[in-house]
Parts: sequence; structure tokens; C-alpha cells
Amino acid sequence: MQDHSEPNKLFIGLAGLGTVGSGLVTLLKDNADIIRKRTGRSIILKKVLVHNLNKPRKVELPPDVVLTDNLHDLTDDPTLDAIVEVIGGQDTASQIISKALDAGKDVVTANKALLAENGLPLFAKANEKGCLLRYEASVAGAIPIVQTLKESLAGNRIFSLIGILNGTSNYILSRMTTEKLDFASALKEAQELGFAEADPSLDIDGFDTAHKLCLLIRLAFGVHYNFPDIPVQGIRNLQAIDIQLANELGYHIKLIGQVREVSDTTKTSKLEAGVFPALVPLHFLLARVDGSFNALHITANAAGSLFFHGRGAGDLPTASAVLADLLAVARHESPNNTGYFEPNLPMALTLSPGQAASCYYMRIMVEDYPGVLRDIAGCMACEQINMSHVVQRADANTSNSSYVPLVILTHETTAQAMSAAIERINELKLPKEPIVIFKVLA
Amino acid sequence: MQDHSEPNKLFIGLAGLGTVGSGLVTLLKDNADIIRKRTGRSIILKKVLVHNLNKPRKVELPPDVVLTDNLHDLTDDPTLDAIVEVIGGQDTASQIISKALDAGKDVVTANKALLAENGLPLFAKANEKGCLLRYEASVAGAIPIVQTLKESLAGNRIFSLIGILNGTSNYILSRMTTEKLDFASALKEAQELGFAEADPSLDIDGFDTAHKLCLLIRLAFGVHYNFPDIPVQGIRNLQAIDIQLANELGYHIKLIGQVREVSDTTKTSKLEAGVFPALVPLHFLLARVDGSFNALHITANAAGSLFFHGRGAGDLPTASAVLADLLAVARHESPNNTGYFEPNLPMALTLSPGQAASCYYMRIMVEDYPGVLRDIAGCMACEQINMSHVVQRADANTSNSSYVPLVILTHETTAQAMSAAIERINELKLPKEPIVIFKVLA
Repeated sequence: MQDHSEPNKLFIGLAGLGTVGSGLVTLLKDNADIIRKRTGRSIILKKVLVHNLNKPRKVELPPDVVLTDNLHDLTDDPTLDAIVEVIGGQDTASQIISKALDAGKDVVTANKALLAENGLPLFAKANEKGCLLRYEASVAGAIPIVQTLKESLAGNRIFSLIGILNGTSNYILSRMTTEKLDFASALKEAQELGFAEADPSLDIDGFDTAHKLCLLIRLAFGVHYNFPDIPVQGIRNLQAIDIQLANELGYHIKLIGQVREVSDTTKTSKLEAGVFPALVPLHFLLARVDGSFNALHITANAAGSLFFHGRGAGDLPTASAVLADLLAVARHESPNNTGYFEPNLPMALTLSPGQAASCYYMRIMVEDYPGVLRDIAGCMACEQINMSHVVQRADANTSNSSYVPLVILTHETTAQAMSAAIERINELKLPKEPIVIFKVLA
Repeated sequence: MQDHSEPNKLFIGLAGLGTVGSGLVTLLKDNADIIRKRTGRSIILKKVLVHNLNKPRKVELPPDVVLTDNLHDLTDDPTLDAIVEVIGGQDTASQIISKALDAGKDVVTANKALLAENGLPLFAKANEKGCLLRYEASVAGAIPIVQTLKESLAGNRIFSLIGILNGTSNYILSRMTTEKLDFASALKEAQELGFAEADPSLDIDGFDTAHKLCLLIRLAFGVHYNFPDIPVQGIRNLQAIDIQLANELGYHIKLIGQVREVSDTTKTSKLEAGVFPALVPLHFLLARVDGSFNALHITANAAGSLFFHGRGAGDLPTASAVLADLLAVARHESPNNTGYFEPNLPMALTLSPGQAASCYYMRIMVEDYPGVLRDIAGCMACEQINMSHVVQRADANTSNSSYVPLVILTHETTAQAMSAAIERINELKLPKEPIVIFKVLA
């Protein structure tokens, strides 16, 4: 909703000068010629909102840029065509976006948490005002997945979407896999290298992945999935032994965000979504996603199978996505914010988590006596769970040599059946430690 | 340039009812609800242009659709908002697109050959008329690479782009690799399975890849690369022994389309483009592209490294891309046909092929006498070529046991130096057969 007073310039305000904001400042300078070639316009940064006006900056601002710590200086400035929000957090960010839209400004944001948990009123306001509210940078960094789902795959019925959406977790899992580190050491290393924050919980406990998944569900299926309803399991309790055993069986363990369309017992089509560490077969491209990279695998009725791989974080990769959105603003694209025509999207019909079907990996630390497998197999059979693979490893790396890991891979079963089987096995009083299970992608 | 006489309907004409055309008819029916949810409009197929009115159809047309064998029935029909051209070939297709644009209709095409060899006047006409001329389906099938380069990476300086862009060739190479087939058997199998045409030359001789590369160069660098200037080498003469030896050295041979920005000897930035079979290291995701899949790897200054993998051909995957373009038409997107603001794009500054730098694989069939390696190494040294790996295989599968393959991997050198070294080796009168060389990706 720019008034185009200077048709060959787009004036923007930037909220936040952290990693992404600094990356954007760098790109606007370094790629200024490309931006003009692409759009016929220059993107001019006029104002930057920061928390502390006197903090040293990672990046040199152009001489005419005004720094402010008052958000109204951005949102109420009639000379700004668009606002970029990369301040993070929810309260101030929401206020900035809301006021900018009220003032008829287009908005570009990277704020997955805000859009996942409290995005509805912002999309409604953008729709009402006819403004662009773009958020390519909020999911998977430089991978253009928002654009792809909104436009390139818009004529497809999406069946499923699986993503490695958190670079911090994937870095930790990669190091646990290749260097046989335990979780704590890999996390410490990631923190020292700047791949993990001092408080890493949003990343390693899966909530960052869940935020992104929530946005992807909206884009792929045109429904709102209530964020707190997404089952989330992180990688904090992941043990080195499971990474090692999975590897020997031909899998890498990855933190996955998954959504797929399934039929429930009454043949009603529902969405099954979740964030969890899963065993990914080594011949899947998803298993080959190393270090801090992100990736997505999509299955759709026309396009078939699509796989995207790229940098999910970092200053320039994330700023690349912000800049793509700014170029859309500069090209005067019409708003297509949710990717759907109707302004009010319905709530998702969701599968009850217990009904979700999957193959499973199960590790039980047992005393190696004759009949132990018979007893456990009996528990599985009682729940109608078929086993595809059983390995008992006397030589595995455990502190107490009288207990050995028994690993079972199952055919497809339900979460409910697995819980019931675990309960039965626990009643046998065999296991030394809690039974560990993971989903297995197939 | 639709006149929007029926705002909730987009009326289209379809030229061509082969594989892609039939796929589109299927999708328009199967995904009609999704199309309406995405755009608020229905896409109504009104007319189909075919070569032979009486030929049996692969797909059932909706009852009201008019079949015609006269292209003017499509291009001159004022009730059609947009024309889809999937007839293939250049003359008739060019006429259809040109006349449709003249009539102010938006156009969607999958015609890579036409846009690569004779696209300029069509883009100029679309620009003049303010019409959309979209072509997502022309490169890499369902992979949204046109959209990605035009929009998502538009703020990036692209350094390089490497693609596996021809599913037929990749299928043949995959079968030669996994099943140790020779070229003729793999081609025959591909033809029997419908992965290769009766006349496969466009695919296996690399020209289809070169057409697609030409479009990608325009999108990524904003320049026209004269199609006949792209050096093209196909896979027709590829021998099983090289696939096998490459495999043992840790590579898969893939038919590659590549373009990258390089500096010539005077430090001028130029483009180096080519189509050729190359050795791809097994740890590259590109080496993992099997069967008839396509893939692209892009390096850019902000986004970093991006990889895309998906179906490059087939009825529904290609129709998925056509439909994405039709949805853009239905959403009334502004034309952004080349991805650049200026209507006239400059010609590419191109590197002379001899100056192109690469690592190489070289196979020489030699008699195994003392000093043979010394003599050959001498020829390489004379051209300042450093060797990274030398393997002499007495046990390799050759008909004449007194000749063995000597395989050399080089460090980076120029095409010119390699030609000169080959000339020197030939002067030694050692080789039994012509020396074989391939580029090696690094």
C-alpha cells in the first residue's frame, strides 16, 4: 500500500539490528545494483529501531540512516513505505507490525514465533488494509519455501511435508553422529561456534521447529493449526547409544517437523503434525543434511516428490529471504499473504496423537537371560505390533555389562499401541532404564 | 492483460494435448477446489488446439470443451483470457504465442527450445503488450526454479548454477552406474519404459539441457547467452568402463549443465557455460540424483548454497508447473517475465572455452611397459598440469589384455592445456584408443 511518491525508490524502516538486521544492511549496500536491475527501484534504508542507541554495531550504517529507540518513529513515519521486523520476541514485534499495517505500510518479518502463535489478527489486519505481510525468512532461511508453497505448488494437493527446520539441533545431531559426541559436548561445541544460543531451549526442545511447522501447515493446507496442539519432542535427552545403534541399522537420527494428511478410523481426512527426533534411512536425501543446514521434503499430488536444501540461519542467508520479500514489495506485488483467497482460514481437523501411525525404533536395556526376547515379543504381539528387525547387542557401549541393549524395529503401528506395549514390558520388570522409542521414517 | 469480464473465472485455451496437455486437463479437474481456494477463481478450459481432430485422446475432456485444429480459433477468440502452449516445436508454437500476445492474452508455455533459441522477440512483445509470458514448466519440471531465480533469489548475486536437467540422460546414466549396462542397452531400456523418445538425440546429445541452461542463465544473470555459443557434449559415446572407473574413484558421471561467473586473464567478469558429462563426487547431493529426477545446485552471495531436487518430466509434474503459472495469471500478477526491470537485456560476456578452468579425469589405454607413466607424466608437466591421482588398472575389463587403462585425475587446469597435453601424448604413439577426458566437479 505504498503511495509511490518516489516511484524509483522504496523507503524502508528496519526494526532490529541483530544478526539478520545487520545482514540486511550489508546486502542492501553490496547488492544495490542487482536490486535496481531487478526492480527498477532502489531500496533506501531510512531508519533503524534498536533497543540501545549506544551499543556498538556489527555493521556500518549508511550516513543518512536515523537510529531510534522509539518504535513510533518507524510506524508513524509517513515517508516509510515498508517496515522490516527482525527484532524477535512477540510483544514489541507485534506492536510494530500492527501499527505499521494500520498506517498502510507493507511489512516484512522473520518472526516465526509471533506468526505461529499470534499471527491471525496480523493477517486479518493486513488483509483489511490491503498491505503485504511477507515472511519468507521465518522458515528455513534462504530456502524459498514460503514462496514455493504460496505460489509454485499452489495448484497441488499436498500430501506431506517433512522438514529439518532447526540448524542448531541438526548441527548437534550431526556432531553426535560423525564425532560420536554426547549431547552435552555437542551442545557446548555448538555454543562456542555460535550455532547455539546461551539459552538453547527454543531450538533443542523443538519449539522453534514447531513454530515453523505451524506456518508451513497454514501455507500447505490452508488451515490454522493451533500451536499448543502440536506435539513437540526435542533432542535434549537423546543418548549417544541410540545415534550409534541407529547408524549401524542404516539410519541417521534427525529432528523432524512433519505434517501429513491422513484418514482417521471414520475415513475423515485429518492432519497429523508433530516435532520429534526420528530415524531417517540413509538413502533418503533428508539423512544427508549435515551441520547447520535445513531441508524440506514435500509430497504433492501433481508435483510428486520435491526436496529443498539450504542454509536455514545466519546473517546473509536469512537476509536473502528478507530481501526477496522487499523486492516483492518494490515490484508492487498484490498481497497474497496467506496464499489463500478467503481471508478467514478454517481450523485444522487434527488426528488424535494416539492414532498416528508410524514405524518405530525401540531400545530396551535388559539382562541377557534365555527367554527375554520371548517375553518382550509377547508384549508386542499382544498389541498387534509386528517387528521387522531385532538386534541384541552384547558388545554395546554400556556401563553395566550385565545389561545389554535390545533394539526392535517395528512395522507400522500406532502411538497408542506402542504406549500400551511399553506398559506391558515395564510390568515384566525387565528393563534397567526407561525404554527409549523413536519414530522411523519410511 | 485480462479484461476480467467474469472476475471469478479464468477462461483458457490449450495448444497441445500430448503428455503435458493431458496432465493439465487432469489437474484442472482433480484440483479444481484447490485452485478456487487459492485464487478465488475457477480456471475454465474452453478450447483445445490439436493436430489431428480424430486421434484417440489419453484424457477425457470436459463436455463443453471445443476441439480445433486451427490455431486462430485459439489466438483470435476474445473470450479466452490466457493461452497455454504445450504443443512443442518452434514454428507453430511461436506463431501461437505471438498472436496470443498480440491479442493481449497472457501466455503460459513449457517450450524451452523456442524461448532459448528465439525467445527475445516474444519477451519484447509480452513487455510491449503488458502481458504475462510465463514458463516455469520449461526447466526442471515441477522444481520451481524459474520462480526462485526471478523472485526468491532476486536480491542475490549468483556465482554458479549446476543442474541435472534432463531426466532421460540421467536415467540412462543411473542404469549404466547401478546395473553396469552399456549405453546402448540403457538407452533401449529407457525407450521401452517411455523415459526416452524413439529419436532420443535432443536428450542424449545435450541440447535439451543446453536449452534449459540458456533460460537459467537469463534468469540468474540478466543476460542473453547466444544458444549456439554454448559448448555442448552429450552422453552418446560414454563407455561403461569410465562409469565403472569413476565409481571406484568415488564419483558418479552425470550430464551437467553449468554456468558460473569467472574472471578472465584481464580480470574481467565473464560467464562460463557448458553442457557436458562430468564426474560428481559421491558426497555431493548432485551425485545422489537417481533415475529420471532433475536437480539444481546454486551458489549465491547471500543465500549461500541451495539445492533443489524433483521430477523434471512427466505429465503431472510438468503440468504442476504450468498450473502454477496459470494461478499467477488468475491472481492478476504483474508481468515480471524475464525477472529484470529493463526490457532489453544485454548479451553475455562469455569466456573463451579454452580458458575454462576445471579438474579433469583422463583415461588412456596404454601398453603396460616400464616408463609409460614417466612419458605421459612428462607430457602433462610440459603443459603445467598437476596430477592429483594416477591409477593403472591391469585387471580392468578390456578386450585386449596387453592394453590397460591408465586413469589420471588432475588438479585445476584449462581446457586449452588439456588439449595440448593430449596432443603431446598422441605424439608418443602410445594410446591404443582415443584418449577420454571428462571434467571433474570440485
